[in-house]
Amino acid sequence: MDSKPKRVMAKKKVNIKDVAAKAGVHPSTVSRVLNPDTASMVSRPVAERVTSIASEMGYKRSPMASGLRTGRSYTVGVLIPDLTNPIFPPIVRGIERSLGERGYIAILADSDNNKKDEHAILDSMKSRHVDGLILATAHRKDLAVNTCIDEQIPLVLVNRSIDSHAVTEVINDDEKGISLAIEHLLELGHRSIAYLGGPPDTSTGRDRHQAFKKIMRAHGLEPDPELIVNCAAFTEPEGHLGFLSLLKKHRHFSAVVAANDLLALGCFDALQESELRCPQDISVTGFNDTPFMDRLSPPLTTVQIPLDEMGAKAAQLLLNLIRDPQIDSETIKLKPKLVVRGSTAKPRT
Amino acid sequence: MDSKPKRVMAKKKVNIKDVAAKAGVHPSTVSRVLNPDTASMVSRPVAERVTSIASEMGYKRSPMASGLRTGRSYTVGVLIPDLTNPIFPPIVRGIERSLGERGYIAILADSDNNKKDEHAILDSMKSRHVDGLILATAHRKDLAVNTCIDEQIPLVLVNRSIDSHAVTEVINDDEKGISLAIEHLLELGHRSIAYLGGPPDTSTGRDRHQAFKKIMRAHGLEPDPELIVNCAAFTEPEGHLGFLSLLKKHRHFSAVVAANDLLALGCFDALQESELRCPQDISVTGFNDTPFMDRLSPPLTTVQIPLDEMGAKAAQLLLNLIRDPQIDSETIKLKPKLVVRGSTAKPRT
Repeated sequence: MDSKPKRVMAKKKVNIKDVAAKAGVHPSTVSRVLNPDTASMVSRPVAERVTSIASEMGYKRSPMASGLRTGRSYTVGVLIPDLTNPIFPPIVRGIERSLGERGYIAILADSDNNKKDEHAILDSMKSRHVDGLILATAHRKDLAVNTCIDEQIPLVLVNRSIDSHAVTEVINDDEKGISLAIEHLLELGHRSIAYLGGPPDTSTGRDRHQAFKKIMRAHGLEPDPELIVNCAAFTEPEGHLGFLSLLKKHRHFSAVVAANDLLALGCFDALQESELRCPQDISVTGFNDTPFMDRLSPPLTTVQIPLDEMGAKAAQLLLNLIRDPQIDSETIKLKPKLVVRGSTAKPRT
Repeated sequence: MDSKPKRVMAKKKVNIKDVAAKAGVHPSTVSRVLNPDTASMVSRPVAERVTSIASEMGYKRSPMASGLRTGRSYTVGVLIPDLTNPIFPPIVRGIERSLGERGYIAILADSDNNKKDEHAILDSMKSRHVDGLILATAHRKDLAVNTCIDEQIPLVLVNRSIDSHAVTEVINDDEKGISLAIEHLLELGHRSIAYLGGPPDTSTGRDRHQAFKKIMRAHGLEPDPELIVNCAAFTEPEGHLGFLSLLKKHRHFSAVVAANDLLALGCFDALQESELRCPQDISVTGFNDTPFMDRLSPPLTTVQIPLDEMGAKAAQLLLNLIRDPQIDSETIKLKPKLVVRGSTAKPRT
């Protein structure tokens, strides 16, 4: 009600020139001191005086205003395929923490496993002048990624990679992860092991599938194509459908390696529906060790990857690229480890 | 490598005047047609012709460019206390879906349960010229909310409310939710019921606590202050600590009502540490029915609230407020229901 008079009476906003005058420095020095990217260019005593005067006077640097001069928006677009997949909140938290330390903020969008048009989302982010993008949505051949490369938008892929290694990416060592799961099952005595994979047009879908076949062969076991099903998405319902189709083939197997935790949960559902028990009848392994997997019934044996670190690392690499677009692209592979829980046991004899 | 020549050779970008000329209309008509807020102001045949010509010519409306004229950024800030609390991904997904339908995008920030300065985050969002804010972080007395009211920034609270009902909010019916949990336990035969609450400076912490005492009294049971503990945050570690402190008092109780699912998970941990079983020794109820609560060991009996709908509704109300800031504030209370699972049973006799 009374907010309009308040606005009229509001005292004049302190600007950068006021702070500079009081500190006895040039406004550009104030700008440098208050920008984390350039603060180190100013001597410590001056920086401390300016910071303290700016704080006293209630002056806050506006990233948007300085963006008008530097051409930067201090905003990074983050595109993820499915916010309700529990792999992503920890990744996003790592990204936001890293960005926040440098005065950047994230614009987050969820493509709902491609149901929304990723191109439209990217266009929308570009029209908001993001300084760079972090994509967790990449497909192996990805037009959106190609567009960003063509338009020279700084870009980092997280969790998934593209076929051509032209982009900086922070991913898992998928082969190592799958080998940990298989070797654990072999040690328990399993020999007939099924594989429930993800979409082959994603690097995680393709790489984990290839790794499964390679590691089985390395242990002298020829993978049975009838025991391999790739699902259309990394979700519980797709895992449920995929594993039901495996069970309906009535081929013998005593364990299944699922390509992520949600697919493994789909296996739990299909097993329950088929009146089979885990791990007594069939052992199940997951991938990612997302939150709560230790609390399930049975607790899920799964490949653990450092999700928060993956996000933080992706953000750091992107900020480096924004500062220096000429940096060569690189691929960072994070090391997974196996967490053994109650969903795996010796096969019945 | 070859992207620089490409940029030089890139053909001229189609602009709104090109589309208007080809369609034989004024540029402002093109603008109206392509803006979901104003599309209905143009006759259908004209709208269809303009849309089809714009699409042929590859012209895309830039919300930022039209924002320069309308003063809108088509961006909404969303501030949540903890992205790793599984209540928030479904709320955020509902928000993003609703916003996306109207050409808006969300800037998301995670205050990490107040460890990050919410004021700094809000300043940062304001400097990016958000058209409005959705806050899930509100405390009962909230300076950030007051600032937004003073500065006339359209604002909707989701999940939590403030003490003065001056702001539009979409919340649960907390009293109804707590009464469902208590009445279920009473029906099972429990009489000594403990309460593990959330931070009293949040509306959800305060309202659920008040509801617990009120509903117990309504059933002729005087709540024992020794059986009530309020935790410092709605997290598993705080629930664990809080429930251990309840157990250490060695007062008899056979059930606990936890103020959210994460606190209930903390109870599970404390019970296990104390070699007590759920539900045989103590029944536990949660609140929210976040993902995976049906898969726990034991599956959690909890109060289910429509999280996705809560987010979608908050976004709709905010877009209404952005269009017409004079709309009166309102409080929407969504109806919860109880989902009975394995964490509750009859008390031991």
